[in-house]
Amino acid sequence: MSVLVVGSAALDSVKTPTGEVTDALGGSAFYFAAAASYFSPVKIVAVVGEDFPMGKIDFLKERNVDLKGLEVAQGKTFRWSGIYHQDMNQRDTLSTELNVFESFSPKLPDEYRQTPYIFLANIHPALQLDVLNQVDNPRFVMLDTMNLWIDTDLEGLKKVMAKLDAIILNDQETRQITGENNLIKAAKEVTKLGPTTVIVKKGEHGAFIVSQDDFFALPAFPIENLFDPTGAGDSFAGGMIGCLAKQDNLSADNFRRALVYGTVTASFTVEKFSIDRLREITMDDIESRYQKMQDMTKF
Amino acid sequence: MSVLVVGSAALDSVKTPTGEVTDALGGSAFYFAAAASYFSPVKIVAVVGEDFPMGKIDFLKERNVDLKGLEVAQGKTFRWSGIYHQDMNQRDTLSTELNVFESFSPKLPDEYRQTPYIFLANIHPALQLDVLNQVDNPRFVMLDTMNLWIDTDLEGLKKVMAKLDAIILNDQETRQITGENNLIKAAKEVTKLGPTTVIVKKGEHGAFIVSQDDFFALPAFPIENLFDPTGAGDSFAGGMIGCLAKQDNLSADNFRRALVYGTVTASFTVEKFSIDRLREITMDDIESRYQKMQDMTKF
Repeated sequence: MSVLVVGSAALDSVKTPTGEVTDALGGSAFYFAAAASYFSPVKIVAVVGEDFPMGKIDFLKERNVDLKGLEVAQGKTFRWSGIYHQDMNQRDTLSTELNVFESFSPKLPDEYRQTPYIFLANIHPALQLDVLNQVDNPRFVMLDTMNLWIDTDLEGLKKVMAKLDAIILNDQETRQITGENNLIKAAKEVTKLGPTTVIVKKGEHGAFIVSQDDFFALPAFPIENLFDPTGAGDSFAGGMIGCLAKQDNLSADNFRRALVYGTVTASFTVEKFSIDRLREITMDDIESRYQKMQDMTKF
Repeated sequence: MSVLVVGSAALDSVKTPTGEVTDALGGSAFYFAAAASYFSPVKIVAVVGEDFPMGKIDFLKERNVDLKGLEVAQGKTFRWSGIYHQDMNQRDTLSTELNVFESFSPKLPDEYRQTPYIFLANIHPALQLDVLNQVDNPRFVMLDTMNLWIDTDLEGLKKVMAKLDAIILNDQETRQITGENNLIKAAKEVTKLGPTTVIVKKGEHGAFIVSQDDFFALPAFPIENLFDPTGAGDSFAGGMIGCLAKQDNLSADNFRRALVYGTVTASFTVEKFSIDRLREITMDDIESRYQKMQDMTKF
């Protein structure tokens, strides 16, 4: 089954304690697509400016990523620049130039409307809702968001949430949406707002799934050489939905496996800048870490 | 096989967002013994004052806990008082009265010297070393410590570490001992200081084991009603060593199972004040949560 992602397309400039990169391929749509395309065909809806170096995404076409929905608008591409400090869990944004992303209004090509698996990456809740109005009866919709929208448009966010199958949040967002400090309780409360499955990401501490009929907790894949955490969340979502769509199976057991595939796919992303690592690894590499996850968690 | 614990005996006064308790049974030796005694016979070495209410530990005798090593010294029992705030991960110490604990000098009764499994709870490294000089060829020695000793006597601590089989640390202590920020790398570096097995506790994020031939990561047991976290670490250690000693099996696989038993034993401790919950649960309760851990982690 194919997967549709609607999100950002960006050129990122990132500094970490071990290096830096300028105008590298970034944005949730590309991270997601690079990850999900190991598992399933992907369709992208995003916007870039006229300055966007199209050659950088040629490799996505070879991976069954449909770029018909990638709009080229007048103006410059969205640029983000940030710095990670020694502990890598904290980052500071140095600059954000929204450029063409500021007036992004996702328009789905007609042939995208029947895509069964949908990922609404982190954009304004009103745009996420607008996307849902353009698709016909999707089998599965998952959403990502951020503290900015929880702060500024919780009502709008709750309107989209009512229409979701799943939501992916970090620990802070889960607490912020519900006002509940206990993370397990908070995640359970989120399931009452619409999404029957809630995925909580805890970075180096792993992730867990709460749904009406399951609870599954998974440690992180152990990374000794964390290089650049940018895009970890979107490639996590990509590996996860890619796996669900590949099997076209939304059982609790398959959600568990999908969470593991999301975890290991993201574990590669953070080993190099941009999506460089997701260009070079093979499905065998992913399967090998999946096996390692199984070995390191069983008792 | 039997287990020896050398640690503190205290009367704790604790405030949490949901209640408070005064002069409740506390201290690492009692938390450890209450937990380990579900699995194996336990011997305690600790000191209390003349004011200690001995009736409070009668139940330990019924559980095969040998109290011959519990010294009653002239003066008052060690008292600690603290407060937990809303998020329960942070606590403030309100007062510490060391009393008889200030001049604690562990003396092992002769019949304790051959105990095969030893837990050196968090006391001054010089005292921990002194205990090791009083035992004959133990099969397994594990140590706990705290930031205070890492700050003030790292050399002394390293001297004891050279003689250990295992050490149990939280994430902050692991980083502090090694100066390495990456937690996996830091734990591996600790294995070079003596203990071949390093257990890293991460509270609500679970725990992991690093040893020369294994890596095992385990999420926490999901607790929705965290009541009082005091003693979680010591009952974790108690469940863990209790299990190792019961099987008398130090294989990597049994360490994994022991970590799970430590996790679930501690998960009960935090549901009530003091060791109240560890007085009332049965081995069936522990086994039932062990099974739940298996169900919630398999894929």
